[in-house]
Amino acid sequence: MPKVGIVMGSDSDLKVMSKAAAMLEKLGIDYEMTIISAHREPDVFFDWAKSAEGKGIKVIIAGAGMAAHLPGMCAALFPMPVVGVPMSGKNLAGEDALFSIVQMPPGIPVATVAIDGGMNAAILAAKILAVSDAELLEKLKAYTTEMKETVQAKAAKLDEIGYEAYLNK
Amino acid sequence: MPKVGIVMGSDSDLKVMSKAAAMLEKLGIDYEMTIISAHREPDVFFDWAKSAEGKGIKVIIAGAGMAAHLPGMCAALFPMPVVGVPMSGKNLAGEDALFSIVQMPPGIPVATVAIDGGMNAAILAAKILAVSDAELLEKLKAYTTEMKETVQAKAAKLDEIGYEAYLNK
Amino acid sequence: MPKVGIVMGSDSDLKVMSKAAAMLEKLGIDYEMTIISAHREPDVFFDWAKSAEGKGIKVIIAGAGMAAHLPGMCAALFPMPVVGVPMSGKNLAGEDALFSIVQMPPGIPVATVAIDGGMNAAILAAKILAVSDAELLEKLKAYTTEMKETVQAKAAKLDEIGYEAYLNK
Amino acid sequence: MPKVGIVMGSDSDLKVMSKAAAMLEKLGIDYEMTIISAHREPDVFFDWAKSAEGKGIKVIIAGAGMAAHLPGMCAALFPMPVVGVPMSGKNLAGEDALFSIVQMPPGIPVATVAIDGGMNAAILAAKILAVSDAELLEKLKAYTTEMKETVQAKAAKLDEIGYEAYLNK
Amino acid sequence: MPKVGIVMGSDSDLKVMSKAAAMLEKLGIDYEMTIISAHREPDVFFDWAKSAEGKGIKVIIAGAGMAAHLPGMCAALFPMPVVGVPMSGKNLAGEDALFSIVQMPPGIPVATVAIDGGMNAAILAAKILAVSDAELLEKLKAYTTEMKETVQAKAAKLDEIGYEAYLNK
Amino acid sequence: MPKVGIVMGSDSDLKVMSKAAAMLEKLGIDYEMTIISAHREPDVFFDWAKSAEGKGIKVIIAGAGMAAHLPGMCAALFPMPVVGVPMSGKNLAGEDALFSIVQMPPGIPVATVAIDGGMNAAILAAKILAVSDAELLEKLKAYTTEMKETVQAKAAKLDEIGYEAYLNK
Amino acid sequence: MPKVGIVMGSDSDLKVMSKAAAMLEKLGIDYEMTIISAHREPDVFFDWAKSAEGKGIKVIIAGAGMAAHLPGMCAALFPMPVVGVPMSGKNLAGEDALFSIVQMPPGIPVATVAIDGGMNAAILAAKILAVSDAELLEKLKAYTTEMKETVQAKAAKLDEIGYEAYLNK
Amino acid sequence: MPKVGIVMGSDSDLKVMSKAAAMLEKLGIDYEMTIISAHREPDVFFDWAKSAEGKGIKVIIAGAGMAAHLPGMCAALFPMPVVGVPMSGKNLAGEDALFSIVQMPPGIPVATVAIDGGMNAAILAAKILAVSDAELLEKLKAYTTEMKETVQAKAAKLDEIGYEAYLNK
Repeated sequence: MPKVGIVMGSDSDLKVMSKAAAMLEKLGIDYEMTIISAHREPDVFFDWAKSAEGKGIKVIIAGAGMAAHLPGMCAALFPMPVVGVPMSGKNLAGEDALFSIVQMPPGIPVATVAIDGGMNAAILAAKILAVSDAELLEKLKAYTTEMKETVQAKAAKLDEIGYEAYLNK
Repeated sequence: MPKVGIVMGSDSDLKVMSKAAAMLEKLGIDYEMTIISAHREPDVFFDWAKSAEGKGIKVIIAGAGMAAHLPGMCAALFPMPVVGVPMSGKNLAGEDALFSIVQMPPGIPVATVAIDGGMNAAILAAKILAVSDAELLEKLKAYTTEMKETVQAKAAKLDEIGYEAYLNK
Repeated sequence: MPKVGIVMGSDSDLKVMSKAAAMLEKLGIDYEMTIISAHREPDVFFDWAKSAEGKGIKVIIAGAGMAAHLPGMCAALFPMPVVGVPMSGKNLAGEDALFSIVQMPPGIPVATVAIDGGMNAAILAAKILAVSDAELLEKLKAYTTEMKETVQAKAAKLDEIGYEAYLNK
Repeated sequence: MPKVGIVMGSDSDLKVMSKAAAMLEKLGIDYEMTIISAHREPDVFFDWAKSAEGKGIKVIIAGAGMAAHLPGMCAALFPMPVVGVPMSGKNLAGEDALFSIVQMPPGIPVATVAIDGGMNAAILAAKILAVSDAELLEKLKAYTTEMKETVQAKAAKLDEIGYEAYLNK
Repeated sequence: MPKVGIVMGSDSDLKVMSKAAAMLEKLGIDYEMTIISAHREPDVFFDWAKSAEGKGIKVIIAGAGMAAHLPGMCAALFPMPVVGVPMSGKNLAGEDALFSIVQMPPGIPVATVAIDGGMNAAILAAKILAVSDAELLEKLKAYTTEMKETVQAKAAKLDEIGYEAYLNK
Repeated sequence: MPKVGIVMGSDSDLKVMSKAAAMLEKLGIDYEMTIISAHREPDVFFDWAKSAEGKGIKVIIAGAGMAAHLPGMCAALFPMPVVGVPMSGKNLAGEDALFSIVQMPPGIPVATVAIDGGMNAAILAAKILAVSDAELLEKLKAYTTEMKETVQAKAAKLDEIGYEAYLNK
Repeated sequence: MPKVGIVMGSDSDLKVMSKAAAMLEKLGIDYEMTIISAHREPDVFFDWAKSAEGKGIKVIIAGAGMAAHLPGMCAALFPMPVVGVPMSGKNLAGEDALFSIVQMPPGIPVATVAIDGGMNAAILAAKILAVSDAELLEKLKAYTTEMKETVQAKAAKLDEIGYEAYLNK
Repeated sequence: MPKVGIVMGSDSDLKVMSKAAAMLEKLGIDYEMTIISAHREPDVFFDWAKSAEGKGIKVIIAGAGMAAHLPGMCAALFPMPVVGVPMSGKNLAGEDALFSIVQMPPGIPVATVAIDGGMNAAILAAKILAVSDAELLEKLKAYTTEMKETVQAKAAKLDEIGYEAYLNK
């Protein structure tokens, strides 16, 4: 049974959103992923958002670009957390999707992550689930250790070979 | 029977949106005006937007601030034109509502007017109706003449009394 | 007899504006399309904008970039709706054309669509005409259904083949 | 035992952050609230952030303005969700705090809400806890109903007394 | 015979534009000043802009706010320099008028000064006239000396009384 | 004897600034062009700016990027008009150079043109000189006619071959 | 003998810059403070900036608003560190001065602090001097302790009296 | 013994930060350079920042992108100057890192340089050290002369071969 629902407004968002899926897989979290446009098929969207709770979904990750209404409309219809991922586009340097997602009015928050932050959306969803899942919390702590070791390995390599070799590798 | 539906997300938008109502009255256009939050009462909103066509509404004027989803969601549900009015707020200099309304994805346009442009939204709605209403078109042309005369009167006064007197009046 | 006039300030806008033409063709709406610079040939522009009504044009779609004055000056001279299309340029992330088109003063609205939103300009023009054209309204509803089916087909494909295959196709 | 830790970088943030506290109280959620500057007392901050999990805290709400590092540094040290509240300041229209909080690098997300969105931070924290707390989930659904009724009452009043009376009340 | 024509789109611009008039008076330069809206009375505007050269005007100073088309349209119709003054408004921090005036396309420049820079517009117009007016050039050099002495007097006062007294005066 | 001095802060600006030179040549205006950095060689810069008037220069065209101080410092030292050309760079979408050039304080205006607007800077310089040069004024009017004819030829071609052929040529 | 030179472009900057002076006094650092406009009196400015080293000045703190050239021009003429303070103005949300100061080209850095950050400019100057002044370094460490205790006292008070009382005090 | 510590949050910053290293080498200043993430390994970061003074480091150069907390957290832990280098990223035109670094709260300044300004960070660090190092000050003055000669050589070449040849070389 999926615990996380990943939804995006267009398949052009898939490159970013697939990073969310990959991270959930890495952490062993069941999810479903689909493409639904709140603008082009509002009825389909309403049904999906309203049925999410009944399917066992605990967190929705919603990605959208431009006038990104999908995350906010999910938050209007789903009672648990919605994580919003602003997609960058050709114009406005990503500000349009960011402002459309983060500036929600009082009462209906969206947990917004960085522009194009698909992977971070999954980690945030995992942190939300880890509030009541000790095993998942341990996985997240292990991932933190993994990140630390990755940076330390890079620092060691830079120290060993110098910046010129590092840049040319 | 109302031809224009004015809808806003919060009563804090009423000061701007009432200018739309007043201009429609001046031009003799029937309208209905209400407050509906797409975020706080999505079902009420869906019913309203879907029933608008059946009530005879030809144009919707929708005003919202911050992550302003109301105009775009109207455009997803109503088949005729939606005029969007971005409301300025305390932060981001009005860019949040503007970008959230104007940057609609392919297929679902919103006819966006200036930030806080309640009056212009009504004039745009009237221009839309005037495409098939010769009498209304004449009223709009008369309004254009009225605007011209107002500016000319100001220019004449400035010429007559000079800028210092004009500023002190 | 054309019902829509498409005008752009430079032939560098044609790539975006041709999408408006193609969509009008798809919806069976007669149009004329031309290049006129309000800055480089103001007399030609004035004559065109003033003669549009007499030629039967009901909606003007005007596209321009940078200090985009063409849509607003059309709105000053043409009594029915003007749809404005801001063109992105090399600098300022598209904000210059957007602000120059949408921020019209009280009395002279321009129905602004997204930056580079040529196709949406045509859909908005069609929605405006559909207020008094039941047949066109049906075509627009059919287009809405078409969009919905396109998204659903993508969702089905993603569900079928998974995100890795989808991204690699 | 507190489930939510509210922390802010300066007592000038208290007006916004107290709305988070009030909303948690309304929803019956235990919290602690304090002022800690990651910049002015990094050791105090480190101890607090590291000890939060041991005290039973499941979600941290962190508010900060300008170069707002507090939420991001909490996210670096606390393994469960951190909700970030950007504070508006005198300059840059609130963009400095928003960008400093939302644009977290891969691996360390902050669940960002709207600028000055203290109340929404608490609702988001409650939604996070409601993933594993059915009673709290019911309270949130009741709050949603309450919001809906509040908007409907305003709409009814506007309908009853008209916009002029509404604006003058 | 006026050498400078000052034109503004609305009498709300007069407070800023009157500073241009006052500076021209100080420098002994004949001018005319009027209010003309390129949007609300395009024919009046066209006539004025086209007749300016014949009246002996050598430089136009044009001020406008929001989607500020007045300076650019003057530059399209008047063959000598047009100085543009962007007016700040309630929203967008002044960027709308600035971008609408400065970002003119190739072939039609507007000499743009700072937002609300009415006085500087007059000084720039005077510098333009001073290219062929040695007496005016001397007046401008004297004004430069005056500015220098004003700053030096302030520096001397600060040195004499200290910053606390200076701030409290 | 040069009438216009073209100066730029770096040879990376030459691609844009050479368009100014080419336009001055086209209009038959003598100029000198050089590279001087106000930051890297302030003494050289001071000497150049102070000696410009003596060399017969009537207008300076100054181009610079990033924290673009060159135009403003020219305006502090040269008594006749300075035309400023903001150069776009890798970051900030060109806003840094634009704001650094146009936002001059009271008393010291810079006639700012569009970002990367090298050609327009030359046309503005020519318009300034044309205030007292009837022959040059005629050349500028002829150039205006030339621009008009160029646009009309493009419009005719589009009309003749259609947008698909036009885009594919 | 002054070790720090504080300079500002206008006496309207004094309110912010006096905070720099007050902090230097608190830390026992000799300074001189004056008003010099790089734009209105470039010769005075050049002399001051060139003579600073000879007077024993080790750090310059320069504050300016709008197209803020003063800090950058100091950095071009003075061989030791220049700390730049961007002043907020009426328009552009402070971005004009910030970009004009921080975006210096390669070779001529300005150590930029926050918009209106007069006090921080003094602390940065003190940190620079503390590199070779052990006693001053101790004073700075003591100031850090003082800041920590101030925050802790506020946290204790909030804990003691609660947020409602704290906000009403 | 290193006098300057260069630290960056990710090896993707190395291309910019290596320019700082190269300039320090050119000026003969000992440095150490490493990669440490304040977010991914806060304990490692704390230890490094706290031990820097004991290792003899007098200036830290810290580079980071997006929500760039590394420079500000260094400034919270290290008592001498921290130079911050904002890294540009894919979105927001570099404003996120710039605002996150420069807008530090009162008490904890970061000496911010231009976006991607790695080389300038090293020059600023050298200027800071030169306050108490006469030999280094002479090297910096020599570097200033070198920059001047480089620009003069370019100007001479442009004068000699003309702009067309210069652009084609």
